[in-house]
Amino acid sequence: MANPSRQAVNFATPRGFATAFKADCKETFFPDDPFHEMKHEKPLNKLKKTIQYFIPLFEWLPNYNLRLFRYDLLAGITITSLAIPQGISYAKLASIPPIYGLYSSFIPPFVYSIFGSSKHLAVGTVAACSLLLSETVGAKASPQDDPTLYLHLIFTATFFTGIFQTALGFLRLGILVDFLSHSTITGFMGGTAIIICLQQLKGMFGLIHFTTHTDVVSVLGAVFRHRNEWRWESAVVGIIFLAFLQFTRYLRQKRPKLFWVSAIAPMVVVVVGCLFAFFAHAEKHGIQIVGELKKGLNPPSIQYLNFDPQYLPVTVRAGLITGLIAMAEGIAIGRSFAIMKSEQTDGNKEMIAFGFMNIIGSFTSCYLTTGPFSKTAVNFNAGCRTAMSNVVMGFCMMLTLLFLAPLFRYTPLVALSAIIMSAMLGLINYDEMIHLFKVDKFDFVICMAAFLGVSFVSMDVGLMLSVGLALLRALLYVARPAACKLGKIPNSSLYRDTEQYPGSTPIQGVLVLQLGSPIYFANSTYIRERVLRYIKEEQGVSDSKTDIIEHLLLDLSGVSSIDMTGIETFLELRRILDSKGIKLSIVNPRIEVLEKMTLAKFTDAIGKESFYLSIEDAVQNCRFSLHSSKTTMEEA
Amino acid sequence: MANPSRQAVNFATPRGFATAFKADCKETFFPDDPFHEMKHEKPLNKLKKTIQYFIPLFEWLPNYNLRLFRYDLLAGITITSLAIPQGISYAKLASIPPIYGLYSSFIPPFVYSIFGSSKHLAVGTVAACSLLLSETVGAKASPQDDPTLYLHLIFTATFFTGIFQTALGFLRLGILVDFLSHSTITGFMGGTAIIICLQQLKGMFGLIHFTTHTDVVSVLGAVFRHRNEWRWESAVVGIIFLAFLQFTRYLRQKRPKLFWVSAIAPMVVVVVGCLFAFFAHAEKHGIQIVGELKKGLNPPSIQYLNFDPQYLPVTVRAGLITGLIAMAEGIAIGRSFAIMKSEQTDGNKEMIAFGFMNIIGSFTSCYLTTGPFSKTAVNFNAGCRTAMSNVVMGFCMMLTLLFLAPLFRYTPLVALSAIIMSAMLGLINYDEMIHLFKVDKFDFVICMAAFLGVSFVSMDVGLMLSVGLALLRALLYVARPAACKLGKIPNSSLYRDTEQYPGSTPIQGVLVLQLGSPIYFANSTYIRERVLRYIKEEQGVSDSKTDIIEHLLLDLSGVSSIDMTGIETFLELRRILDSKGIKLSIVNPRIEVLEKMTLAKFTDAIGKESFYLSIEDAVQNCRFSLHSSKTTMEEA
Repeated sequence: MANPSRQAVNFATPRGFATAFKADCKETFFPDDPFHEMKHEKPLNKLKKTIQYFIPLFEWLPNYNLRLFRYDLLAGITITSLAIPQGISYAKLASIPPIYGLYSSFIPPFVYSIFGSSKHLAVGTVAACSLLLSETVGAKASPQDDPTLYLHLIFTATFFTGIFQTALGFLRLGILVDFLSHSTITGFMGGTAIIICLQQLKGMFGLIHFTTHTDVVSVLGAVFRHRNEWRWESAVVGIIFLAFLQFTRYLRQKRPKLFWVSAIAPMVVVVVGCLFAFFAHAEKHGIQIVGELKKGLNPPSIQYLNFDPQYLPVTVRAGLITGLIAMAEGIAIGRSFAIMKSEQTDGNKEMIAFGFMNIIGSFTSCYLTTGPFSKTAVNFNAGCRTAMSNVVMGFCMMLTLLFLAPLFRYTPLVALSAIIMSAMLGLINYDEMIHLFKVDKFDFVICMAAFLGVSFVSMDVGLMLSVGLALLRALLYVARPAACKLGKIPNSSLYRDTEQYPGSTPIQGVLVLQLGSPIYFANSTYIRERVLRYIKEEQGVSDSKTDIIEHLLLDLSGVSSIDMTGIETFLELRRILDSKGIKLSIVNPRIEVLEKMTLAKFTDAIGKESFYLSIEDAVQNCRFSLHSSKTTMEEA
Repeated sequence: MANPSRQAVNFATPRGFATAFKADCKETFFPDDPFHEMKHEKPLNKLKKTIQYFIPLFEWLPNYNLRLFRYDLLAGITITSLAIPQGISYAKLASIPPIYGLYSSFIPPFVYSIFGSSKHLAVGTVAACSLLLSETVGAKASPQDDPTLYLHLIFTATFFTGIFQTALGFLRLGILVDFLSHSTITGFMGGTAIIICLQQLKGMFGLIHFTTHTDVVSVLGAVFRHRNEWRWESAVVGIIFLAFLQFTRYLRQKRPKLFWVSAIAPMVVVVVGCLFAFFAHAEKHGIQIVGELKKGLNPPSIQYLNFDPQYLPVTVRAGLITGLIAMAEGIAIGRSFAIMKSEQTDGNKEMIAFGFMNIIGSFTSCYLTTGPFSKTAVNFNAGCRTAMSNVVMGFCMMLTLLFLAPLFRYTPLVALSAIIMSAMLGLINYDEMIHLFKVDKFDFVICMAAFLGVSFVSMDVGLMLSVGLALLRALLYVARPAACKLGKIPNSSLYRDTEQYPGSTPIQGVLVLQLGSPIYFANSTYIRERVLRYIKEEQGVSDSKTDIIEHLLLDLSGVSSIDMTGIETFLELRRILDSKGIKLSIVNPRIEVLEKMTLAKFTDAIGKESFYLSIEDAVQNCRFSLHSSKTTMEEA
């Protein structure tokens, strides 16, 4: 009966469990196949390449030369001029003494230059994580009432961040970062920018009393409740600084070559602010200044790590959340700049580098560092060639700490506020949000969940809400896989979705359905219902007895895997179809699916002759059997 | 340049958001399309059909006749003989007075017969949920120290179960049940059976002191710690009963026609036990009996529902978890029996029926009921035709409560233990576990997580662990979609996985990759890496300059949807490919994918001429351009 010309389906014996498991693990954890190139090397070369793989420094340092160094030197100096004001500002955001912001730009860059795989990433502290740390840890220990305990808990949280990041890197769980979607990050960044800007109203208006909450309502409430503390002098100075900074940003957009103006603008603001405060005795006019900054390098802080069970939950939690966000930001930014130069970064290596940076940082009075967007962009534009620019920045910071730090004591807080506000205003990506709204409403909802959650509730609630929605969507994707009815496109052997290609014609007596996505417990009930509905609809349309469906072809080309529940659903489906007198055939099952079907004896149950390699083959065969059954009936 | 014979891709204008959203919602919540048939009816008929849809009673009652009733009467009496001993036994498992087990078989069957859509389901209490209720609620209120409070909390939990089930049904969230996979249920049932059997050792050995924990270690520990309480008389009687019950089960397996022997066996055990206890004064020989059972119907219990905030978390939690499990069991069982008769049940209707059953039950001194496996199987085998058998059972229970209840006071506890043990031993599905191990190791792990978790930790931990693993697997499925390289099968226009079909040959200069599953944030990084790795491998193999890849064809037939991150990944990929001099083409994008690509202007970015309807078309075109570029080079 079988059509002799048909192509054979390959019923190979299923691979052993060990082989399949090894292949799956490799695909899951080593999709980039890092050791592929080393396979055919000699042992000594292999060792060398492995060391180079784990410590990227050894990869680029041997080829390093003076020409490259000229570029890196310039970039390093440029980012230092950004690192000083940002370090001081963000330390204020994290509610720790400003000097720790400078410390955090000294040790970590050296660590990163050894282990980091990105050429353009500039290491530093980030605003969002600084505020998040202060919000989370501040709930347990007040930075005002017990600053020492608070500082020690910040170091401890940084330590946990480091451990977490290193562990994820070694376990090759870069996959976790994949679950922070683009929409989540856009919304989170936007929301964070809003609340950080609002926080700066404290510095702008020279307020003394403020709230520890970060949401829009509390912050605006606090600002207006303390109207009596508003100082116009402070506000005027702040607005001038902010206008200057925004102007330099505008200039950069208009003339990309003038990027260095906006790069050094924050430093200019700090220096001008210091001079102004020093000569005008600003303190007496209600303009607060940073206050004493001690000369000297980072003191060790390893002895301050606090593992008291009372504080452990909060430090671990703060460490994990900020670690994840910092990592996502750092990896995403490193990647996007690498792409511009058609280069690649390795997410897992980056995680290990960030992890070491934070572990060592937590031992040496640094708090959470990663690769911030603004600094990295400046580094890239300043023409950095390798991670050496971070080394240059580290040296510059060392000199600053040793000699210049005390000079910054006159920095007006309002200057720092202006710097933070200006940086944050650039992070609200309106265009992207509008784009999301236009293209994908669900992505927009995910984005808004993060944006509004962060703005009106708190940073971690916003983040979790958004990630939760994104996961829900992922689960819905798998729970409701698209199925469609195929028809034949005239004058070809192609079968395509009848909805998408209205010209395609159905085949008499044969229903062809295409299933997409893996089939397993979460969607097998749905698939059964959906297939039965197609049959019901089909038979509803054609009332005449001749047009009745006799064959159901399931095209499984798009089904990448199946589990036991899925196979049992197919068996169930076959029983139901049998009772309706419909024959089930399977078209083009993929290797993983066919293996499972063979193991579960499904192939034997429906018969190997019911498996086809192409829809055309299957349809030919069905026609043949339709025809012969009709002839038999007529003869009888 | 374009090949004139190629088939056109349909670049229709994307559907409006409202249309697409409506279609998506319909697919998600109404995959069975219940109102499809009513569309073309007259208003009055429509109303009638809608009522019939929501209250299935009206669907079968008008056609009901005496012939059908004969079958249902017999089945109803048979299940009553099972309902009495099971009711008493499971009430003991739930640590509430045995009379409530009888109450629970009186009201709920009537409710189910009105709203339920299954013809074979027999309503009753279930062992697993009874124990789970006692474990969860017992942690907050001791059934020994404060039995009244405990009982009221059980009613309250049942009330929440009902509300939860009804809500899920109305919201059409039957999808939740889909997340309890077959493997999870197999493992959970097995583990529950083990711990329930072990619990029965208390009754078997006539122990007075016992543990409130349910895990294997605690229970065995308690049994051996109280060696001094062991009574051999009790054990001997118990073993005789158990042997008898197991024998009748064995008989049923050998001769399916004798199913009624095993169906009435528990009743026989109870009656014999009562007579034995009455005449032999068993109490004096260490064989405990049930004790007083009051005559009379269910008293109202609506006034006992306890919404005290102190107990709310535990009652809500107990209600949700037991509700979900009971629902999963009931729906799965109703479905499997319906399939045997080629009929269908509606999960959402079943949920509403269960919900009403439990809400009304909680008002009338019943605790959690659903459709237990054993009773339903007996009902089915006894030849029930409609839900009328439940009505018969309800009437029989009413008569029992009104007249016979006091007679059961002499039932020995050891008889109940034997009944429970015998029922539970049948629930451990060794064959299925071995089958899972053979076919799908991950499914086996999910199953074992439930089995061991329930046995050694606690029922809810086991369940959550297993569901968690299953969800993790679902997420891994979407995070690591299978991609494969296609080659041309000789003498055909088919392109298939080169791994699966080693005979297929690659096309010179063209790399064809097939992607499966939706593309979105959780897997887009992976997909980019994987595609780039394929290119690297390809170019590593062929060192000669002529064999270099010039075209990359992505077959998206199996990609059912895409999000913003996914589209951005494609744009990124295209930039990288451009820098390598490789041209990207898309083959057969599905309607949802093409819509998003059009909206995001991706189609404009890579050009509509880079979209093909079939791989063959695309390959022809690539060959053409390869050829012409070569000719141009040669000419130049």
